[in-house]
Amino acid sequence: MTMLEILEKKKLGKALNREEICFFARSAAEKSVPDYQLAAMLMAIRLQGMTDEETAELTMAMRDSGHVADLRSIPGVKVDKHSTGGVGDTTTLVLAPLVAACGAPVAKMSGRGLGHTGGTLDKMESIPGLRVGLTEEEFLRQVREIGVAVVGQTGSLAPADKVLYALRDVTSTVDSIPLIVSSILSKKLAAGSDAIVLDVKTGSGAIMRDLDSSIRLAENLVRVATLAGKPTVALISGMDQPLGTHVGNALEVREAIDILSGRTKGDLKEVSLTLGGYMLLLAGKAKTHGEAVAMLEEALESGAGLKKLAQMIAAQGGDPRVCEDVDLLPQAPVQKQIFCARSGYVSKMDTAALGMAAQSMGAGRLRAEDPIDFSVGFVLQVRIGDRVTPDTPFCVLHARTEEDANRAEAAIRKAVCFSEQPCERAKNFLALVTKDGITRMD
Amino acid sequence: MTMLEILEKKKLGKALNREEICFFARSAAEKSVPDYQLAAMLMAIRLQGMTDEETAELTMAMRDSGHVADLRSIPGVKVDKHSTGGVGDTTTLVLAPLVAACGAPVAKMSGRGLGHTGGTLDKMESIPGLRVGLTEEEFLRQVREIGVAVVGQTGSLAPADKVLYALRDVTSTVDSIPLIVSSILSKKLAAGSDAIVLDVKTGSGAIMRDLDSSIRLAENLVRVATLAGKPTVALISGMDQPLGTHVGNALEVREAIDILSGRTKGDLKEVSLTLGGYMLLLAGKAKTHGEAVAMLEEALESGAGLKKLAQMIAAQGGDPRVCEDVDLLPQAPVQKQIFCARSGYVSKMDTAALGMAAQSMGAGRLRAEDPIDFSVGFVLQVRIGDRVTPDTPFCVLHARTEEDANRAEAAIRKAVCFSEQPCERAKNFLALVTKDGITRMD
Repeated sequence: MTMLEILEKKKLGKALNREEICFFARSAAEKSVPDYQLAAMLMAIRLQGMTDEETAELTMAMRDSGHVADLRSIPGVKVDKHSTGGVGDTTTLVLAPLVAACGAPVAKMSGRGLGHTGGTLDKMESIPGLRVGLTEEEFLRQVREIGVAVVGQTGSLAPADKVLYALRDVTSTVDSIPLIVSSILSKKLAAGSDAIVLDVKTGSGAIMRDLDSSIRLAENLVRVATLAGKPTVALISGMDQPLGTHVGNALEVREAIDILSGRTKGDLKEVSLTLGGYMLLLAGKAKTHGEAVAMLEEALESGAGLKKLAQMIAAQGGDPRVCEDVDLLPQAPVQKQIFCARSGYVSKMDTAALGMAAQSMGAGRLRAEDPIDFSVGFVLQVRIGDRVTPDTPFCVLHARTEEDANRAEAAIRKAVCFSEQPCERAKNFLALVTKDGITRMD
Repeated sequence: MTMLEILEKKKLGKALNREEICFFARSAAEKSVPDYQLAAMLMAIRLQGMTDEETAELTMAMRDSGHVADLRSIPGVKVDKHSTGGVGDTTTLVLAPLVAACGAPVAKMSGRGLGHTGGTLDKMESIPGLRVGLTEEEFLRQVREIGVAVVGQTGSLAPADKVLYALRDVTSTVDSIPLIVSSILSKKLAAGSDAIVLDVKTGSGAIMRDLDSSIRLAENLVRVATLAGKPTVALISGMDQPLGTHVGNALEVREAIDILSGRTKGDLKEVSLTLGGYMLLLAGKAKTHGEAVAMLEEALESGAGLKKLAQMIAAQGGDPRVCEDVDLLPQAPVQKQIFCARSGYVSKMDTAALGMAAQSMGAGRLRAEDPIDFSVGFVLQVRIGDRVTPDTPFCVLHARTEEDANRAEAAIRKAVCFSEQPCERAKNFLALVTKDGITRMD
């Protein structure tokens, strides 16, 4: 078999078999065929597509290109959660301790932020002392002992994905459903959990900007994960505005702690409980989603969730006192309250632009090797549908300098639109996709 | 502008503008973007196609990526001829001297053989002493003085094509009409002539194996060449069997001389006169194609064509006595007559396999750097439709060794099919394509 034969077949729109797909994934991981053949193959897949079976084979071949975590030493059903990436989206830090407090083990490997989206690992590292680089042994032991760990990858998960992802980025083949699905799921499967809850974002800050393509992606993810033997549900959640009010690493940790402390409500809390509910359901800890959410609410109100977060922070070397005193988190030197400066209704936000505003303040990175500043970002005090007057608080900027604050202010003002007419509030969830079908939630 | 933006546009099936196409061609020629982006672009073009305008822009951009020959110092209309490549296809050596003898200048740059198809330069170099590597000045002077020269490229023509052609070969993107058209025409335009006669082969030995796709390729070539300002006609000619009876370098020169001497008739002569007729027509030397062919026949019968060939050979340093005594051409040590060994009708030939048989005897090359043996090849003594008996002469093998001859015999016997029923003769021409439309010739 040669890469040229496989290319020829996919170019003609034919389905590849397992052997051919394994050859492709292995060649990518080992860099044993030239990049130009991989690139031509990615474009052929982008334009000719793949069947579910091909995508499942590619996913499993990419999973098997590297280390596959073995979580069997942790008792119980391990449920992972994955978000396709959003802005102000700190659900992991809210739901992981709550789900663990309800008795379901959470052995989670997370990622770093890139572009306009944040990453859980970066947020966690804003907690003084906290380590995310645990060995696999430390990771497993921590989950066995306290029921929860959120860490970086242990070992090299899905190296084929690393190569293909980098090539997709420079060959205009990012927007391919089979390639997105195999990229996401190969890493999730390699991370070793038994079942998966997927949070597929839709809207101005998401990989898929319209509902139909988000649902299509979710269906593909669920079908392929199911073919690969992992019970999976996907929620389509709105990214027409940042999920939480806080955008920036330490600021998002602060919001998560505020929610777990019962001080703050809002969309981030609602989404975290809904996703966490499906995790408990898949873990077999509840009979219905309603029952599961009630369990999580109980864990929140009793303080068990916050206590679990403090335990996790301590176990990973961080200062658990942040859970009692959020002012121990890094704080930016310049903090500036700005106001709406006009009357009307918040009608629309460019979520990606808001993410980029935080990123350009220093909260994110353009390239993987860029340093980040944990303290900077902003708290957006309005939501789509809010009625505002000129002196309604709009945003608190947390910046390194006055100049940075002013630049960010301009970008944020540009990214938020107002109208004279009342506007509907944005929905948190638009659809639920399971192996049995789609339930629209609008 | 970046290659990524251009890739994105073509991936979505949009037409590229001149600036974008120039960027792509220049990037290929200068190797200023990575191969993987060029490869992804080639696959996107293969799968999304290009409009005629895009293909014309790509052709001109590739032409302008290198040296463009300036033939203005040669008086008259310079008409080039290009064949998409065949087996036993020596039309250039027959028609170039005849057309020149009729007063139309022939300033022709030819190529070398690759794979199963032969190349005019290799055939010419089988003539003792002959040089094809003239400088541009020598080339122009020779055409001004004697009206004809057939040489290798002067200067680096269309270097973008060299890069893209090599990449197409390893990315399964050879079979793309816009890429074939721009590859052929960029070199033809860079070779500087005023008008072009295209010989598009169809059948078992051709780049396009069925008539419809050959016609589609011819239409595209004619439309794009016309858009690029060069009057062009294309003939679709059959390649269901080798064109001439002789296959191999010196053997093909021998057949060309035999035709110009009036000793031999047959399909090679007919095709050469038809193509040459269109060259005279485009050069303005005749009012109708019939008149043009009559002029060529007159030049053949009078010996003016053979005399012109001898002049050209002498001008390029070769021994012109080959025109009087073809035995001065290199001859293989082993010559073996084989017979049909059965009764019936010749029904079918695998022309590509026959070309490969000659190539594996040493007449051609698999890689551009392989050496070749001018003397070897074979003379196929049957044509499709011929009735044969066991002792009908089938083929004369010209080989380096008995062993080579036996191996070639087996391959040739396998490539020629017989049937019990009478078979129709193969047609030389199947269609004429001009800017005004298609004329089927069946």
